[in-house]
Amino acid sequence: MSTELLAIHRERLDRALAALQSREAWTGFIESPSTRVHGEDAPRRAREWFEGRLGQPFEIGQPDERMRAGEEVSPYTGKPLGISYPASSPDALFAAARAAQPAWRDAGPEARTGVCLEMLARLGDRAFENTWAVMHTAGQSYAMAYAGSGPNALDRGLEALARGWQAMQQLPAHAEWHKRFGKEEVRLEKRYRLMPLGPAVVFCCASFPTWNAHPAIFANLVTGNPVLVKPHPGCVLPMALTVQTLRTVLATHGHDPNLVQLVVDTFAEPLGKVLVEHPDCAIIDFTGSSRFGSWVEAHAGGRPCYTETSGVNSVVIESCASLPEMARAIAGSVCLFSSQMCTSPQNIWIPRDGIRTGDGHASADDVRAAITGAIDALVADPRRAAGVLGAIQARQTLDLIADRQRAAEAGGRVLRASTPYPHPDFPDAWTATPLVIATDLERHDEFADEVFGPIAFCVEAPDADTALAQATADARRNGAITAFVYSTDDAWLDRAELAWAEAGAALTSNLTGAMPLNFAAAYSDLHVSGLNPAGNATLADWAFVAGRFRIAQARRPLPG
Amino acid sequence: MSTELLAIHRERLDRALAALQSREAWTGFIESPSTRVHGEDAPRRAREWFEGRLGQPFEIGQPDERMRAGEEVSPYTGKPLGISYPASSPDALFAAARAAQPAWRDAGPEARTGVCLEMLARLGDRAFENTWAVMHTAGQSYAMAYAGSGPNALDRGLEALARGWQAMQQLPAHAEWHKRFGKEEVRLEKRYRLMPLGPAVVFCCASFPTWNAHPAIFANLVTGNPVLVKPHPGCVLPMALTVQTLRTVLATHGHDPNLVQLVVDTFAEPLGKVLVEHPDCAIIDFTGSSRFGSWVEAHAGGRPCYTETSGVNSVVIESCASLPEMARAIAGSVCLFSSQMCTSPQNIWIPRDGIRTGDGHASADDVRAAITGAIDALVADPRRAAGVLGAIQARQTLDLIADRQRAAEAGGRVLRASTPYPHPDFPDAWTATPLVIATDLERHDEFADEVFGPIAFCVEAPDADTALAQATADARRNGAITAFVYSTDDAWLDRAELAWAEAGAALTSNLTGAMPLNFAAAYSDLHVSGLNPAGNATLADWAFVAGRFRIAQARRPLPG
Repeated sequence: MSTELLAIHRERLDRALAALQSREAWTGFIESPSTRVHGEDAPRRAREWFEGRLGQPFEIGQPDERMRAGEEVSPYTGKPLGISYPASSPDALFAAARAAQPAWRDAGPEARTGVCLEMLARLGDRAFENTWAVMHTAGQSYAMAYAGSGPNALDRGLEALARGWQAMQQLPAHAEWHKRFGKEEVRLEKRYRLMPLGPAVVFCCASFPTWNAHPAIFANLVTGNPVLVKPHPGCVLPMALTVQTLRTVLATHGHDPNLVQLVVDTFAEPLGKVLVEHPDCAIIDFTGSSRFGSWVEAHAGGRPCYTETSGVNSVVIESCASLPEMARAIAGSVCLFSSQMCTSPQNIWIPRDGIRTGDGHASADDVRAAITGAIDALVADPRRAAGVLGAIQARQTLDLIADRQRAAEAGGRVLRASTPYPHPDFPDAWTATPLVIATDLERHDEFADEVFGPIAFCVEAPDADTALAQATADARRNGAITAFVYSTDDAWLDRAELAWAEAGAALTSNLTGAMPLNFAAAYSDLHVSGLNPAGNATLADWAFVAGRFRIAQARRPLPG
Repeated sequence: MSTELLAIHRERLDRALAALQSREAWTGFIESPSTRVHGEDAPRRAREWFEGRLGQPFEIGQPDERMRAGEEVSPYTGKPLGISYPASSPDALFAAARAAQPAWRDAGPEARTGVCLEMLARLGDRAFENTWAVMHTAGQSYAMAYAGSGPNALDRGLEALARGWQAMQQLPAHAEWHKRFGKEEVRLEKRYRLMPLGPAVVFCCASFPTWNAHPAIFANLVTGNPVLVKPHPGCVLPMALTVQTLRTVLATHGHDPNLVQLVVDTFAEPLGKVLVEHPDCAIIDFTGSSRFGSWVEAHAGGRPCYTETSGVNSVVIESCASLPEMARAIAGSVCLFSSQMCTSPQNIWIPRDGIRTGDGHASADDVRAAITGAIDALVADPRRAAGVLGAIQARQTLDLIADRQRAAEAGGRVLRASTPYPHPDFPDAWTATPLVIATDLERHDEFADEVFGPIAFCVEAPDADTALAQATADARRNGAITAFVYSTDDAWLDRAELAWAEAGAALTSNLTGAMPLNFAAAYSDLHVSGLNPAGNATLADWAFVAGRFRIAQARRPLPG
């Protein structure tokens, strides 16, 4: 029984391992939400599931469920979800996690991997329920909530799981060793035990919870560590659904469900510091603000601490083959989920004297106009806007847009004003089209760090090299996850590639067309480099998994 | 040319990789110092080399060599070596290291691996010179200085190099990626660059410098990081020889020799904190005292920090097949290099009511007498004693022995007094046979932490289970690298194995015979677990290498 699940899912694991090495496009899950694939009933049943949760206690069955908490508000309706979650005390959860750990450790890598693969499959079954959960907490569009927060996030989880599997194969469980010392042949049996570090706390962000949480959860679980999932208080439901699913799989297959537990707190009384400072917290996975992230990093001590905080992502334009195509690509990426992604571009660097294009010279004004025009075109049709922009997760983001817009208006620097767009299905949705502000190096403070939400800066620079130097300097100082450049000059592209590698942002050059600029594919695109302050939780390399367990050795003479 | 060296040494790398997976006994170097293997001249030339260094400036040719330092005293003659080393300023060394880094990074994994393999081979050529250097600084015996600090240390270096090589194979340098987005087939070329973190500082200990330094140096170099080697001021020569050899290999093969530099300081003005706090220090490898080690760990911030500090290693005796054989094994390990190894056992736990042996019951007194008697027998012949005990590295250790002996004498608890033994070749050698003290749990403070040098405690415990519980608790709190148990009860052995795994000490059970108890073999025996305060610099697992570099990604549309 212990390796039955691994046998069932073995092909999926092997395909993931192969894709990790080849870096080719592959998915272990179904990326399309089409009812032709899933049947007519699946979306309807998921909607019913979601509506049945509203105003109800969400049952997980974990220890110490007396207290309840729940403060989520749907960005699509503006109304509280009214779901109450168990608000178990950290002490109770850590104690239960520690109690669950030895048997999970002793189950061994094969059994753990099999259970984790089963968990991913069962999460895949709930992709439509997850869609509703993500929409009405994170504010993602239906399509993104299905694919980006479902199969794509599961692929990132599977990727991390496969990396953990690789790491656990680095040596055998047993070995024999023979060596001559003088006249004596010494013969030893050696045993290598993979030892988990202990409970891991996984902090999840409000706008894209599953995509970073799944890799952390599975990297921890497969290497033997219990997990406390700590969602943002404004976005609990997707993680509650995840925890519930994982606990069911554990219980079904004879494992302690307390290997995965949910920690729910409130805006008024956050538990983040309590969790990090708890003596039983052995590993920290953090996705969230750079402010709290810095505190977490400073208090991690010698514990493994994998972070994704924030960064300032840039587009540097040196020249391009087609101004309209480039503008559409940039506009699409600025609009995608209203720039609430850690990969969304914020600063668009434009040379003062304009650029070469395939259709001749374009002035800086031409470039700015092309980009704002492309945004206008994209958001003009509400149904298309709804599919791309989704909703705004937090009211504070709407306030920030208003503040920045007022400030820029005072200087006559608003290139494109942000306005709500009418959502075709949810008239009360919190929506906002991108604000685009004209700025330059003299106003560097305005855009040098992350400004969260649909706010883009067209930064005029003396020339493309100056732009590249300043944009990469900003990334080194304040973090960056992605970067984008456009140039028809191969030598310049090569220089830019090295500059962005040294700044630690994943670079996309000259991309136009159907793929969103900031789409990151599991098994192929690395996410977060560890080379700048945006974090070190690289999805997924060896560094993401190798430190989550240690190896204890024992040896004794072989019999006979 | 760039991969020529890899081709030359490829078989050695492949054999190391195979041994790492099989954990079988293998060495890439010549473990015997026999002149039948090396020729009559090799030891003589090495001696001449060593004597020619005495009282002379040691030339390395690194930046900023104006200042000179050198305070080494030979534990075999009691006289200063009089060798003066360049005392370059940290600023100059870090600047030179950073300048050397980009070309080394761009040389790529194959070229770097080839150069590192060549370095190991050339260090192997200097094993006899290294023998003299280690003897007259660390105080090791000739045999140990040759094998333990030569080929065995080179094997640990090759092991770490092979782990680094594995880590760099985790993904290809280039890949193609094709995926359909709607009607469009998106085709991208992806590039993955391995990015070093920056200069690494490798702190070396005084008693066994090369064995920990080689793994750190090669793990850093192969992954692209320049190295500043910081020897203990009392033990510089072995590392100066190493740095000189490595710089010659770099220069010979067209690389910047400043990829490896020596930092020499003095007892009065140590540079350790300056190095750790230097803004250019990107990686820390530390072997040394737990006091400074704790400071280093607390100041590492988010930087990778690989440590081996100290620990309290125990022998727990439950029963044994042969009391004389067990006593000889324990005595041998206590005597080996006068217990100046991080793997030397210190606390020997004995049940109050004695133990079962293959020859009937033995009282606690019988066990104590057998152990002290075996030590007496081992040290009786000066030539044998010289080969096993070597000399005492530091005068402070002699002082510590005297202090502890006085204190124990006052309580009538000296089971075996420490005395100098007459070294047959070096009449002025600092020598000391093991002090053995009788103690019990009421005097726990006396032995709960490391007492460095040839001082062993026979700790009487109510029973073996109590002994096991307390010894593992001490290891969890104060660190331990090794542990040893004796029992003829398989169930007890299994329990002990789990207890020591949880305490993070590498366990050796029931070993008697020719192999020293605390012999640790590269490719097979893991050294330092990361599970207790003795450190996390596991030789050598993935965690030891995976965090020393990061991966930067770039992608652009494929042509056509």
